[in-house]
Amino acid sequence: MKDINSKVLLISGHPDLSRSVANSEILKRLDTTSLFKIHKLDEIYPNYRINVQAEQALLTQADIIVLQFPLYWSTYPALMKLWFDEVFTYNFAFGPEGDKLKHKKVILSITCGATESSYQAGEFNFLPLEQYLQAAVHPIKAAQMEIVDTVITFEMNSTVDEGGNQNTVMQLAQQHVERLTSLFNQLNQPT
Amino acid sequence: MKDINSKVLLISGHPDLSRSVANSEILKRLDTTSLFKIHKLDEIYPNYRINVQAEQALLTQADIIVLQFPLYWSTYPALMKLWFDEVFTYNFAFGPEGDKLKHKKVILSITCGATESSYQAGEFNFLPLEQYLQAAVHPIKAAQMEIVDTVITFEMNSTVDEGGNQNTVMQLAQQHVERLTSLFNQLNQPT
Repeated sequence: MKDINSKVLLISGHPDLSRSVANSEILKRLDTTSLFKIHKLDEIYPNYRINVQAEQALLTQADIIVLQFPLYWSTYPALMKLWFDEVFTYNFAFGPEGDKLKHKKVILSITCGATESSYQAGEFNFLPLEQYLQAAVHPIKAAQMEIVDTVITFEMNSTVDEGGNQNTVMQLAQQHVERLTSLFNQLNQPT
Repeated sequence: MKDINSKVLLISGHPDLSRSVANSEILKRLDTTSLFKIHKLDEIYPNYRINVQAEQALLTQADIIVLQFPLYWSTYPALMKLWFDEVFTYNFAFGPEGDKLKHKKVILSITCGATESSYQAGEFNFLPLEQYLQAAVHPIKAAQMEIVDTVITFEMNSTVDEGGNQNTVMQLAQQHVERLTSLFNQLNQPT
């Protein structure tokens, strides 16, 4: 197996991991695997002032980028939207000289409070999740990056008032990490 | 004509109107019509710390809500996403007691730098814009609000380096305001 750990970057888009159950558990477990360099946007940018050059440099150095986020209104939270708005600039991610991210691999790693079956006509979320994710993946596709897979876990709801259960979320987080690790190990096989 | 001006609220989602051409021109022209109470998120929340109770109170008082924003990656900017993430809460906008916005009317007022024809397969934006907007309108639909119309102007690109022209944008902004005003006057007819 090649050692490509230094070129694998996980971007966490949760806006406040100190108040998170699912995402903080996933990141804690991933951190022990040393498979990913973990970059937490909420710790670095609590005031939503993105250092664009630093973020672009980090991306440029990575081969595989894992985007870890909870679904907020069926797409990433505002903090990760801001990261895309500011970092995926003309002549960096797109435009005549905008090939700096071309061919880099992307894994979407998503937690969702709702049930999978709620994403259909007649249910609370109206549409299949893939339809909502079109805007989320737009900058990724425009940058000519390759989305290799999406690891998503539904029903990760820890809010008791909204019918959630923290123990269930912890178990789902463990399974989520196992799926992500397994996917990553497949990608990391020598070719 | 009924006087419902006090119940019409325009939310501006541009993250920095001091650096905007199209959106600042549209808001300047709309302000002279006195048709809308204009609420600029970037002026009130430069540090992205939304006052949820104040925003919910404003929305509760309004009958018609105009959402004014530039397309950033084919949906609203992060600042407006944050506004939805934080303001459209459980038991306010959705959930068993979440009917506080039910039946309120929404107008989407959108500026877009790209051409309309770029929104199709094989072109830079890949898909029709309506497909990207599904996530943007998700909270609005979940809150049982009624989207009465979308006023959108394409090719509002004032960045010379990206092929834009500021004079053209100013003209398009005027036309955009005329379309919005005309739509609003139709809605405002006595029934």
